[in-house]
Amino acid sequence: MSTEKTVGFIGLGIMGAPMVRNLAKAGFQVVAWNRTRSKAEALQGDGITLADSPKSVGEACPVVITMVSDTPDLVAVTEGPDGVSEGLSAGSILIDMSTVAPGATRELAERLGKRGISMLDAPVSGGSTGAQQATLAIMVGGKEEAFQRCLPIFQAMGKTITHMGPSGMGQTTKLVNQILVVGTLSTVAEALTFAAAHGADLLRTIEAVAGGAAGSWQLQNLGSRMVEGDFAPGFMVRLQRKDLRLITEAAHEKNVPLPISSVAKQFYAAAEAAGYGEEGTQAIVKVFQRLAGVQVSR
Amino acid sequence: MSTEKTVGFIGLGIMGAPMVRNLAKAGFQVVAWNRTRSKAEALQGDGITLADSPKSVGEACPVVITMVSDTPDLVAVTEGPDGVSEGLSAGSILIDMSTVAPGATRELAERLGKRGISMLDAPVSGGSTGAQQATLAIMVGGKEEAFQRCLPIFQAMGKTITHMGPSGMGQTTKLVNQILVVGTLSTVAEALTFAAAHGADLLRTIEAVAGGAAGSWQLQNLGSRMVEGDFAPGFMVRLQRKDLRLITEAAHEKNVPLPISSVAKQFYAAAEAAGYGEEGTQAIVKVFQRLAGVQVSR
Repeated sequence: MSTEKTVGFIGLGIMGAPMVRNLAKAGFQVVAWNRTRSKAEALQGDGITLADSPKSVGEACPVVITMVSDTPDLVAVTEGPDGVSEGLSAGSILIDMSTVAPGATRELAERLGKRGISMLDAPVSGGSTGAQQATLAIMVGGKEEAFQRCLPIFQAMGKTITHMGPSGMGQTTKLVNQILVVGTLSTVAEALTFAAAHGADLLRTIEAVAGGAAGSWQLQNLGSRMVEGDFAPGFMVRLQRKDLRLITEAAHEKNVPLPISSVAKQFYAAAEAAGYGEEGTQAIVKVFQRLAGVQVSR
Repeated sequence: MSTEKTVGFIGLGIMGAPMVRNLAKAGFQVVAWNRTRSKAEALQGDGITLADSPKSVGEACPVVITMVSDTPDLVAVTEGPDGVSEGLSAGSILIDMSTVAPGATRELAERLGKRGISMLDAPVSGGSTGAQQATLAIMVGGKEEAFQRCLPIFQAMGKTITHMGPSGMGQTTKLVNQILVVGTLSTVAEALTFAAAHGADLLRTIEAVAGGAAGSWQLQNLGSRMVEGDFAPGFMVRLQRKDLRLITEAAHEKNVPLPISSVAKQFYAAAEAAGYGEEGTQAIVKVFQRLAGVQVSR
């Protein structure tokens, strides 16, 4: 078994790649795997090696991180053919940092637990910028002992690291985070559309209200991008819709009405229908402004 | 005509009273009037005198501030019998700091303008705490010259003071502010209800997410009050509903769809129906938790 300074990493996309770089920078030896190997080859060197399969990552590392797009991807890389779980042995830890269903997380943790493998669900907030700057918020579910053992790993990638409770509570917290993000951003789009319809100077309006009770991260960071017509993705419409699906499913399980999120969801659907799936979430303002027949974005 | 160091003030309620105290503290002589005189008598002394009517306030002061609850109250104290407009003369300025309809504001400004009286609409954000601490955000509509002349007066009561454009644009900006406040707060209530239904530690959840993309003034300041069951008003449900009515009317004029605010509005109506009209806006969480059959507030 390798020392704790060796960490496996599966999924080297827009989030995973900079997270791996930060692990290497913090002195970890990273054994990484990506579905499309060619996209990951540039990462090699400086403490980062590429493995041939998730299974061989599990064999090489006592702690393996997964960072994939959705629940089925997580199932494929953990329990599919040559999956990481085949390589892991008792005493290992799987850390899933993807955003996936809390229920599926608890079930996977239970199956791994029977083989003596611990699992932490540790989804993140902060987007690609947070991943690059190692300032991610990391919300962790699972056993305290495993959390403590992995804390130095989390600290290499994030800033606000919170142990939220048992397995699944990291994912639950991430969904709470996304409910807040989606509702607040939709509110910002609606407010700016109202302001535009009344002929307001939109940047001045943001400046006048952002410091007070109307203020939010979304207004401060994405409000002006809406006005300036900058739709480069911090976080993509397409992925926000996936999180909205997870929110809806988790709410259904517990019979939680979602009056705000369910309305907001329609605007993300409309945004993807209009071809904005790969744009940043702030692109929903284009749906609002079209409905109102006004111009928010330059 | 009195010197510019004399300011009239009409409406000495939960907002007006501390604003008058801050004007006096900054060295202004304040001539004040309140509909219920008995409630205002404690304010007398230290540069504050009480007048017998809005009209006599207008006669005594070149600049008069109104701070009342709603559009009809503004009409009553300005153009009703013994109204302030009877006392004002050419060259005077009326500053309305209430939150009222932008359309009514523009019409009043036009009528006063014909008599050589300037009007500024200068609604505020920051609630009673902002009024007490002289940290209000003040959003001003009207002529630049009048704005400059009144700036020292605004500076005695607020912090972020922004000239938004011509008459009515202060009120428009305030409504944009309130769209943001209402949508963001409703989102916070929904997110905490979802979290409670999934058994999350709510204060820890707020702590884990408030510093990132999910963060807002509403979450930071009212989220924990929801959890702690503290429903003391910073801003009352009843008054928020009045602002929602103004938002709806102004949106109707310009055909602006309000998908988020119109859903949020139902929760404020339900909150008032449940008897929470005089409580703080965070009381809407009691409607959400009842719908979901869970406990957010202790």
